Amino acid sequence: MPLRGPLKSAARGKRCSLKVAGFRASAVSAGIKKKGALDMALILSDVPATVAGLFTTNVLKAAPVLLDMERAAGGTASGIIINSGNANACTGSKGMRDASATAALAEKVLGLKKGTMLVASTGVIGLPLPMDKIKAAIPRLASALDERGFCDLSEAILTTDAFTKTVLVKKKIDGVMVSILGVAKGAGMINPDMATMLAFFMTDAALTKAPLRSALKVACRTSFNSIMVDNDTSTNDTVLIMANGRCGVALKRGTEQYREFCSLLDEAARRLGKMIVKDGEGASRFIEILVTGAATDNEAHQAARTIAGSYLVKTAFFGADPNWGRVAAALGRAGVKMSESSLDISFNGVVVAAGGLDTGAEREAARVMKRKNVLLQVDLNMGSGSATFWTTDMTYDYVKINSAYRT
Amino acid sequence: MPLRGPLKSAARGKRCSLKVAGFRASAVSAGIKKKGALDMALILSDVPATVAGLFTTNVLKAAPVLLDMERAAGGTASGIIINSGNANACTGSKGMRDASATAALAEKVLGLKKGTMLVASTGVIGLPLPMDKIKAAIPRLASALDERGFCDLSEAILTTDAFTKTVLVKKKIDGVMVSILGVAKGAGMINPDMATMLAFFMTDAALTKAPLRSALKVACRTSFNSIMVDNDTSTNDTVLIMANGRCGVALKRGTEQYREFCSLLDEAARRLGKMIVKDGEGASRFIEILVTGAATDNEAHQAARTIAGSYLVKTAFFGADPNWGRVAAALGRAGVKMSESSLDISFNGVVVAAGGLDTGAEREAARVMKRKNVLLQVDLNMGSGSATFWTTDMTYDYVKINSAYRT
Repeated sequence: MPLRGPLKSAARGKRCSLKVAGFRASAVSAGIKKKGALDMALILSDVPATVAGLFTTNVLKAAPVLLDMERAAGGTASGIIINSGNANACTGSKGMRDASATAALAEKVLGLKKGTMLVASTGVIGLPLPMDKIKAAIPRLASALDERGFCDLSEAILTTDAFTKTVLVKKKIDGVMVSILGVAKGAGMINPDMATMLAFFMTDAALTKAPLRSALKVACRTSFNSIMVDNDTSTNDTVLIMANGRCGVALKRGTEQYREFCSLLDEAARRLGKMIVKDGEGASRFIEILVTGAATDNEAHQAARTIAGSYLVKTAFFGADPNWGRVAAALGRAGVKMSESSLDISFNGVVVAAGGLDTGAEREAARVMKRKNVLLQVDLNMGSGSATFWTTDMTYDYVKINSAYRT
Repeated sequence: MPLRGPLKSAARGKRCSLKVAGFRASAVSAGIKKKGALDMALILSDVPATVAGLFTTNVLKAAPVLLDMERAAGGTASGIIINSGNANACTGSKGMRDASATAALAEKVLGLKKGTMLVASTGVIGLPLPMDKIKAAIPRLASALDERGFCDLSEAILTTDAFTKTVLVKKKIDGVMVSILGVAKGAGMINPDMATMLAFFMTDAALTKAPLRSALKVACRTSFNSIMVDNDTSTNDTVLIMANGRCGVALKRGTEQYREFCSLLDEAARRLGKMIVKDGEGASRFIEILVTGAATDNEAHQAARTIAGSYLVKTAFFGADPNWGRVAAALGRAGVKMSESSLDISFNGVVVAAGGLDTGAEREAARVMKRKNVLLQVDLNMGSGSATFWTTDMTYDYVKINSAYRT
C-alpha cells in the first residue's frame, strides 16, 4: 500500500487556480523525457523582482546552481527557466556554457536584459543537456506564458515524483491581500541542507534583498531542512523566491508586517516540505519525529535527523515493528547529550520505553504503527530543546525505484 | 540471487579443525532463541590470558560491553561467556546485574577467580535476559568444554547471520608456530567503529597488555572499521583478543617478531571483516571500494565510507546501474578535498568518468556490474591518500529481513 498512486496533476489550463499577481508561467514537452511528457517550464515576472536563493551544500554543484548562485547574489531577476530529465550536473565547462546559453536564449526571446534569467535543472547526473531540444522549446515556452500556467509548470518539473506539489497562501497584511505561490518537486535524494529538490516561491509583496533572503532561510529550516527520504544530498537542490511588489505592500525587516509575511512563507514551505516526504520514493508511511527534552534545539534537530536516517528504524516502520531499541541505538550515535535511564519513547502515543526500560506495550504499539501516519515521540529529559522532522519508511518500492531508475 | 544461502556451519564435533593451544570452547541451546538453536557459548583459556578489547562507540552501551570495558582494562582474563538472541542492551541496572551474575556463575562453576570472565551478548535490544535459562545452561557449557568446540561456538553466536565466520592463521615466528583463531558474527547494523558484531581472537603467543591492544587496534582499522552494511552502529559491538602464551613465543613491541604477529592478526581480521560483508543482510553483491588520490589516507577512508553509506549508490549496485553521478554526489558531501574536473571513476576496470566527464562506457560498465563482486575505483587526483572499504548492495531482501526481524 504505497502512499503514492499514479501521477496526480493539479487542474490544468483554464481551471488552474494557482495565481499570483504579475507572474506568468508555461510548460512544454521538449523531448528530454520520454513519451512526450512535459519537461521544460518557464516562470516570468512582469517586472524585475527581488530574488533570494538557497542552494545545495554538496561540493559538486550542478551548472545551473553555480549560475543561479552568482545571479541571485545580485538581488534581482525576471524569471526562471527549468528543465527536468537531465540535471546538467557533472558536465564540466560544457555544462556551464549550456546553462548560460539556455538563460541567454530565453532572455533574447523574451526581450529581457542579459543576466536576468535564472536556470534550474533536475534529473540524471552526468549527461550533457540536449541543447538542440532545449533551444527549440524556448520560443514555444515564451508564447505559452499565462497567469494560469503554474499548474502545467508544477507537472513539468517532476522526475520520480508521483504527484505535483503546490501551495497558495494568502493573508491580509496592512489591509492588502498578500499572496505566496509555491511549487516544488522532489521524492528521492532528500536530505537536510537541500536534497534533489527544486522549490520556487512567487510573491506579490515587495521586499528588498536582505530581508527576503532572511525570510527564506528561516522558512527552510523547519521545512526543507527538516525532511529526509534518504541520506543523499543532491547536486542540484535549489530554492528560489521572487518578490515583485505587485500587491503594493512593502515589507521592512523588524516590522509586524514583515513577521506576518515570514510566518506565511514558513507555512507555505512546511506544506511543500511535507508533500515531498509524502511523495518519498516507495514510502508506505509518513513518519513525524518529535524530539523534546534535548539540551538545545540544535541537538534535538540532530537527534531527529539521525533517527530519520537510520535504515534499521525505517525498515522497522515499514514492518510496523515497535522496535524502540533501534531508535535508542540511533540516538546513541547522534552525538547529543543523553542518558539511557532518562529516555522516553512512544509511537502514536503508546509509550514503549520509559526511563530507558521497556514498558511491555509492544502489542498495542504494533497495532497503532500500522497507520499511514506515525508520530514517533522521543523525550531525552535533558533540557528544553525540541525539533520536528519528517521522514518515510524504507520499503521494497524504494529499492525498486532506485535500482531501476535508468534501466 | 542473494549471496546468502541456507545457514552453513563449520564441521561440528570431532571433525572441527579450529584449534589453538590452551583454549577450549563449548556451545549449548539454552532456549533463548527459538527452535532449540545453539544460543550460548563459552571460551576458556587453560591459563589466565592477556586480554585486549575494542568496543562500540555508541553512547548507549549494552551491559556486557560496560562490564568488559572495565575488566579488559585490567589486562587479564580467563574466558568469555556469550549468548545470542538477546543483546542485554537498554536494560538498565537489572541488565548490569544480569551480566555480572552470568560472569559470576561461570567463574564459580569453572573454579575461577572472581572478575576473570568476560561477557558478550547479541540479539534484540530492550528485553531483559532470561536469567533462569542462562543459569541452567552454564553447568552444561562447562562440562562440554573441548578443544574442538570452536565450530559449535561459531554457530551459537549468530543472529541474522547466514553462515559461520571463522579464520585460523598460523605462522612460524622465531622458529615456533604461532596460531591465531578468530570467530565472528555480524550481518546487519554494520558500520565502522564496530557494528552489531562480535569477534573473538584467541592466540597462543605471549604478549603483554599494551602491545596486544595496539596490535588489535591497528588490525581493526583495515577490517572491522572498513566495512559497512548499513549506517547503524550497534550497542553491543565487541572485539576481544586473548593471548595465553602457550606456544612459548613472547612478543615485544618494536621487534620484527611483533610486526609479524601484527600482520598475521591483520590478515585474520580482514578475512573475518570480508565474511561479515559477504553475509550482509540481503546482499546480492560484494562491493570493494578503492579510493586513491585523496589528500590523506583519512580523507580516502572518509570518502569510501560516505560512498558505502549512500542508499542511492547501494540500490544502483543492486540494479547493476553504472550511475556514477550518484557516486560523485556522495563524494561531494563527504567533506573531503576534491574537484569535479579531476575525478576518475571505474566499475570493474571500465572507466565511466574521466576528468569528471562521462566516457560513454555505460553499456559495457552495466555488463561488468552484473558480477557478484564489483570493484568501484575512485581516483580523486588530489594527493596520495588511499583506502579500501567493503560494502554490499541494497536489496529487497535487506528490507524484508529488517522489517520482519521480530514479527
